Amino acid sequence: MELTEKTLSSEKIFDGRILHIRRDTVLLPNGHQSTREVVDHPGGVGILALDDQNRVLIVSQFRYPYGEILREIPAGKLEYGEDPAEAARRELREETGAVAGSFQSLGELYPSPGYCGEIIRMYLAQDLSFGDTDPDEDEFLGLERVPFSHLVEQVLSGEIKDAKTIAAVLKVKLLLGL
Amino acid sequence: MELTEKTLSSEKIFDGRILHIRRDTVLLPNGHQSTREVVDHPGGVGILALDDQNRVLIVSQFRYPYGEILREIPAGKLEYGEDPAEAARRELREETGAVAGSFQSLGELYPSPGYCGEIIRMYLAQDLSFGDTDPDEDEFLGLERVPFSHLVEQVLSGEIKDAKTIAAVLKVKLLLGL
Repeated sequence: MELTEKTLSSEKIFDGRILHIRRDTVLLPNGHQSTREVVDHPGGVGILALDDQNRVLIVSQFRYPYGEILREIPAGKLEYGEDPAEAARRELREETGAVAGSFQSLGELYPSPGYCGEIIRMYLAQDLSFGDTDPDEDEFLGLERVPFSHLVEQVLSGEIKDAKTIAAVLKVKLLLGL
Repeated sequence: MELTEKTLSSEKIFDGRILHIRRDTVLLPNGHQSTREVVDHPGGVGILALDDQNRVLIVSQFRYPYGEILREIPAGKLEYGEDPAEAARRELREETGAVAGSFQSLGELYPSPGYCGEIIRMYLAQDLSFGDTDPDEDEFLGLERVPFSHLVEQVLSGEIKDAKTIAAVLKVKLLLGL
């Protein structure tokens, strides 16, 4: 079965500080036309940083679209053209002060594929040493260290809702058998 | 530490078929002002449907923002005001033809909390019976039944990238011990 849609034309809708929106006209597999509204995104990174006592660095941050403080693994947006692994090291240091001796990929996450092209690369960071944090100017963060087994419970109970945090925690649980 | 941001004003940017964008001016915890660009979203549902041979219903769909065919659990957007559990039953039937005798919550997923207020409610559907599919007019889907253990491997290897699918599969793996 043919599933592919072909772009016929593209119209820029909004070029904001964070969001970049376009509306494309597409040819559907059945020959009809439709429109697709797309959020373009440079991609992001999320870092599950595990200290030598199997505790995870968790940041608390007010997430404006929800009007809630969420608990998440450290994360951030790529600069356009930035190497994802470099961005992950930068975000981890800025948000938590941690520098990791060991960094490995936990795969990619497509958060909301219906309307956004964002790819979040997830990493496991270990062998941590700590310096000063350096958060972005308009970023206000709380920081805690949560025992890995407690975090797994908080994910399974539904207390942790952030997609990249759920994915990274449960992947590490099953891949490392922690 | 105070983390909350207060809305000072809100400007509508785009009211599309799918996307609704606003730009708010906010008061930060340090008394400064900033802007927040937000995608408003009615919320969605994702359904991990497990048949009596422990196979999962997986749909293949061209996801225009990525230009890729993704393999995902059945999912869809809420109509504004629609009950999420009803929406989940509707989407499951429309996309796969399945009707579930047993439906239970797998919690909520916040896919991209930096800029979007979408909440995806995830469900485990079991005790399945099958009728006809009824996809949306501009929706073209492939359908397969994947043994649950294979799907777990595909999630852990990084082959499955969709956030709600990763979260639902690994939660079921750990909650049901499958």
